[in-house]
Parts: sequence; C-alpha cells; structure tokens
Amino acid sequence: MSEPFRFEVVARDGQARRGRLSLPHGIVETPAFMPVGTRGAVKGVTVEQLQDLGAEILLANTYHLHLRPGADLIARAGGLHRFTGWPSPILTDSGGYQVFSLASRAKVTEDGVVFRSHLDGQSHTLTPESVVDIQARLGSDVAMMFDQCPSWPATREAAEAAMSRTLRWARRARDRHQALESGAAPEVARPAPGQAQFGIVQGGTFKDLRDLSVQGTVAVGFDAYAIGGLSVGEPVETMYDVVGHTAPQLPEDRPRYLMGTGMPDDLVESVARGIDLFDCVLPTRNARNGQLFTRHGPLNIKNARYAEDHRPPDAECTCPTCRRYSRAYLRHLFVSGELTAATLNTLHNLHFYLDTMRGIRKAIEFGTFDTFQRAFLETYSRRQISSLE
Amino acid sequence: MSEPFRFEVVARDGQARRGRLSLPHGIVETPAFMPVGTRGAVKGVTVEQLQDLGAEILLANTYHLHLRPGADLIARAGGLHRFTGWPSPILTDSGGYQVFSLASRAKVTEDGVVFRSHLDGQSHTLTPESVVDIQARLGSDVAMMFDQCPSWPATREAAEAAMSRTLRWARRARDRHQALESGAAPEVARPAPGQAQFGIVQGGTFKDLRDLSVQGTVAVGFDAYAIGGLSVGEPVETMYDVVGHTAPQLPEDRPRYLMGTGMPDDLVESVARGIDLFDCVLPTRNARNGQLFTRHGPLNIKNARYAEDHRPPDAECTCPTCRRYSRAYLRHLFVSGELTAATLNTLHNLHFYLDTMRGIRKAIEFGTFDTFQRAFLETYSRRQISSLE
Repeated sequence: MSEPFRFEVVARDGQARRGRLSLPHGIVETPAFMPVGTRGAVKGVTVEQLQDLGAEILLANTYHLHLRPGADLIARAGGLHRFTGWPSPILTDSGGYQVFSLASRAKVTEDGVVFRSHLDGQSHTLTPESVVDIQARLGSDVAMMFDQCPSWPATREAAEAAMSRTLRWARRARDRHQALESGAAPEVARPAPGQAQFGIVQGGTFKDLRDLSVQGTVAVGFDAYAIGGLSVGEPVETMYDVVGHTAPQLPEDRPRYLMGTGMPDDLVESVARGIDLFDCVLPTRNARNGQLFTRHGPLNIKNARYAEDHRPPDAECTCPTCRRYSRAYLRHLFVSGELTAATLNTLHNLHFYLDTMRGIRKAIEFGTFDTFQRAFLETYSRRQISSLE
Repeated sequence: MSEPFRFEVVARDGQARRGRLSLPHGIVETPAFMPVGTRGAVKGVTVEQLQDLGAEILLANTYHLHLRPGADLIARAGGLHRFTGWPSPILTDSGGYQVFSLASRAKVTEDGVVFRSHLDGQSHTLTPESVVDIQARLGSDVAMMFDQCPSWPATREAAEAAMSRTLRWARRARDRHQALESGAAPEVARPAPGQAQFGIVQGGTFKDLRDLSVQGTVAVGFDAYAIGGLSVGEPVETMYDVVGHTAPQLPEDRPRYLMGTGMPDDLVESVARGIDLFDCVLPTRNARNGQLFTRHGPLNIKNARYAEDHRPPDAECTCPTCRRYSRAYLRHLFVSGELTAATLNTLHNLHFYLDTMRGIRKAIEFGTFDTFQRAFLETYSRRQISSLE
C-alpha cells in the first residue's frame, strides 16, 4: 500500500524546479508549502477544510507531540495519520528548534539534549537516536534528523560547533533509521513503513561552514536534505544569499527543504534559488493576530479603517472567507475576540500561501517563473520596501 | 422577494406539533432548535459548517450587537444577513436577559433600562421602543419584544411587577413595530421588510401570573409568542409544569418559543407540551468546555479514561467530528488548548441538537412521538436521574 520515497523533477525554469514527491501517504506537487499543525491540528481548522484548501502535506512538531500526548500513545493509535484523521503526507520536524526555543534549561552534550518540558518542568532527554525512534512511532512520511540550531547572531565558533555536532548527529541518526528499517530494533513500533529521513544542513551565515555541512550531510546519505538555521533573525538579504549559495550544492535529484520560512516573498525568492519545500507558522499565526495576506499586500483586519469596509479581504480571492465575508465583519469578529475570527482568517491565509504555490508551479511549467516572480515581488518584496524607506 | 410571516401546523401527536414557519429569509421546519450566534457568529464554526449541519435559523443577541459593532453599522452593511453571511432566517432576542445578567448597575424604570456596558462602562438606555428600532436596523426575521426577566427565585411581588411591566412594554413595543411598518418612522433604516415580532410571556413560576401574562400579551396581538423567564435556575419539574400550563393557552396557529432552553431532555419534554422553537447556548458552550452530547449520554472529553479511546465520541453519529476523529484525539486537542477542539466539539454538539430535532419532527409525523420520547428520556431525563439518586 505504501509507496517508496521518490522525487521527480518534471520541469525547470532557471534554478526553479517543478517536482513531484511520492510519499507513503500520497503525492506532493512541488514547490509546496506545508501548513503547520504543531500538536497534530492546524489551529482553528478541520481536516476537511485543509483538504478543501488543497493542502497536500502537513508539518507536525515532534517536540510537542513527544511531550503530549506522547509518541507511544500515537503509535498505539496507529500513527499520526490515524490519530489526527489527516490521510495525506505528514512531515515531522526534528524537535531541535523547539528544544532550544521553548524548553527551559536545555543542556547540550555530545550525546544529546537534556531539557525541562515547558508544560510541567519534567526532565527529558532527546538524542539523535531517540528522535528517530519517536518519529518512527509517530509514523510520519518524512522524519527530520535531530539537529542543533544556534541562535542568531552566532559567532563563527558557535556556528561551527553546532554545525560539526549536527554532522556527527547526522551519522548517528542515519544509522539508527537504517537499523529500524532493517528490523534491528523490534521494540520500536513502526506504524508507517517507508518513512523517509531528511538530513539538515547547518552553518549559520558562514558560507564555508555551509559548504562543509553540505558535503558532510550528503556523504552520510539521506533521502533528501533541508537547510536549517535560517529565518532566525538574520537580514533577509543574508538569508537569500545563504540559500542561493547552499541550495544548488544539494543533490539535484532530491527535494530541497528550507525550514521555517517564511514571508510570501521568501517563498518566491527561495524557489528562484532551487528550493522545493517550505513550512512556516506565519500564515496561521498571523491570521490569529488579525493579519491577512492579499495580492495587494498584508491587511491588518483590526484597523479601524475596515469597520465599515464591506468588501472581502481580497476581491479576486476564491477562498471560503473572501467568497462570503466582509472586512467589516471579520474586523468585528476579531475585535470581539470571537473564535470564528481565527478560523476564517486562517482559511484565508492558508489559501493565499497554497495558491501562491499553485501559481509558482504553473509559472515554472509554463517557463514564466521570472514574470511571476517580478509581479509578485512588486507587492511583497521586503527588499524593495527596505530600499524605498 | 420576502415572504410574509406564516405558520402552518402540518401534523400533531398529542400536544406535540410538527410545523412549518415561513420567514423573509426562508422556511424553518418545527420543532426547531436555533444555534446561538451571540455576536453574529456561532463560536468556532463557519456559515458553511452550520449549513452542512442543517441549521435553518440562528439566534443573534441584540444586546451584544447593539454595543458592538452597533445596529447602525449593521444597517449600513445591509442588515445582519449581509453582514454575517448567514442567508437563512435569524431571530434576534430582546436584550432584556443580557441587560440584567451582564450589564452593571442596570436601573429599571417604567420607561426602560439604564445600564453600563460590560465592555467599556459607557451608559446606555434601552426602552421597548428603542429595542424595536435596533432590531429593525439589524434586519432579523424575528424580533423579540423587550421584556423584564426577574432573577430566580423571585418573590410573587417581584414576579408580578416584572410581568405587569412586561405587559405594558408589550403594548409600547407593538405600537412602535407597527409604526415602523406603516412607515411612520422613516429615520429608522429598515433593511428587511416583513420582520415578525414575538411577544414574551412572563410571570415566573406563578401559574396565575402566567395566565394573566398570556391573556394580556395575546390581547396586544403579536405575530407569535414566547415563554420567557424559565431555565433561570428553577427545578426542572417546575419548568416543565409551567411550560405545560402555559403553552396550551397560547394561540394554536402561532409558533410557541421557549426561550433559553435547554438540556436535551428539555427539548423533548417541552415539545411534548406544545413548544415549537428553542434556543440555548448549552450545546455550543459545553462543547467549548469539553462536554459532548451522545445518544448514550454526555461525555466529558477531558476525562483521562479517553486518553487511549480510539472510538469516535458516538459510533452511530454521522456528524463530521464522529466520522473522522477519535475520543483520544479530541481529548488531546482539548487538554492542549487547541482551537480546533472548540470547533470539532461544537460541530458534534450542534449536530446532536439538530439531529434530535429531526428525530422529533419525524416522530410527530409518524405519530410515534411518545415512543421517541420514552427512548430518548431513558438516556437523558434529569427527572429519572434525580429519582435514582
């Protein structure tokens, strides 16, 4: 029933790639954006709504699910797909980022990380191996290796140390994953055979460290590769520079995933540099804070100017929110603290992101990505905006 | 385009009536339950989801919408239907109950009520006439008259005073409504011609006061009548007793609305006593607190016993929640404070209420309401439960 991991580039336009990623639970047309379902749900929306929006793959957080309800419970439920009701592909992140940003008193050693849960202060340990086991139990289609992501700005020394450790952890993670695959650890429940494992390239904003990280990670040999440690506070130009330097070094025949990015322009700019996969909490989190992305730019629905604006957020948008509701109504719901505000805003923003990816894919197919990019960035480029200010 | 107010009883079974209520925005099959959309939205769900559940009429709160965003703004938007995107009938309550339960320092005089908004402490006045004007601006299909609902327990003196005042307010409200209908107040925007107005019977738990209230309110002559001032803390037997005493005195050819009720058994017990319309926050509010109504009784999803229960909340239920999600997953979302928990639990509970009404309607049509009632109350009767304890 489960398909093996497979990736095919079906069209190219410059560095931009139009691909098709086959995973045990379905096919993902790339470039693709993965909505974030931190605890196994995208906040305020249902599986049906995500399907109607055309989402093909979700991201779920290993750290959060490990702490609650626990990977063992999810394994006994038959894995994340059975547990959450989401039938299509799921990628689980490594937990590395959350351990350093959410947990208290995280202590890194060569073995792994000891930290206290942000929920109850209880002590936990994550190692490259245990993170593989957790994700095997979760049964995601794609498991990310456990990495060390330094905070920004990082000294060269700190970036190098984290990068080197991540490389050593890559080897251990891959070994463990292959041991599980070969049945060497029958005590680990494996609800979804065919799980792919992605390596993560670190190195901060230092290009030579990125080079070393690419070489080392590719040498370990994962199913595919991600660029981690960006979108952590560095200037947007720096991020694009590092992406443009790093992505082309990654294997041509494997999807390239830029983790945790980003703003709408980041999607377009990064596809232009050869990226195939994205995730970010921005469309969903900003929706809950009242920011709607439209093709004319972002719109803050709580603004008093919308109190009597009876137009939809975006007149050309075909999302369920724009088809029925006005800015005035959405503002009313938001300022009244109504739960439905979060739902409607989230549906709109996810549609915007998923629709942007549809536009990107079509443009690459037609060989018009350059035109698409220029038109899109006229509205959304932070680069232009900063130069105008 | 707008149909006149019309009510037809199409079948009877004992005191229970199967009816069809025509309103400017559509037809409501009765007995009917009205989901509560306090501020113009049912918390956590969309119009599409409400339609999919088969809801035919919503209740919105005059008090809340008057304070924010204001009836004038909604009138300028084209009325509540245009503003909220809900295309089917809407009933707006009188605001009376909220003034006394939510506002601070409400002072009642013969003229009306002066109170301070629970939002910003600003002083407001509501009178029988101004409440008519507000609801005309809101453009609901049914407007409730402004009534005085005494708190429970009330002395006979307090119940009588509130009942008498409500009667005097009934005359004033009806006069104002008819003045608006005849075009005597062109300064009041009237987005929805054909708005019906319901009178409200008060009198607490004193049957002779209820008799006087029925006679006086019917003498004023409304489109239909509601029983107010129940479900405010009195024993359930007392409520059924007052409903059973009052409902049959109300005009046969008009729908009878029991305001603010209730628990699942209240619906069935009150239909048995001749009630046609219900509203209550219970299914939606309890959903947000983790209580799910099932045909085997209520289920508190946060209970640890459900942590690994992979069955749906109700195996026989056809709601979108039960078709896809397990108790274990819903418990996980609830204890994690995920917004989606409110959505999924609300969808389930509203389906349960609306489906109960569908069952009631079918039973009356088939002349089997008595059997339906007995089977339903085996699970849900608080009367039985109290006698067992």
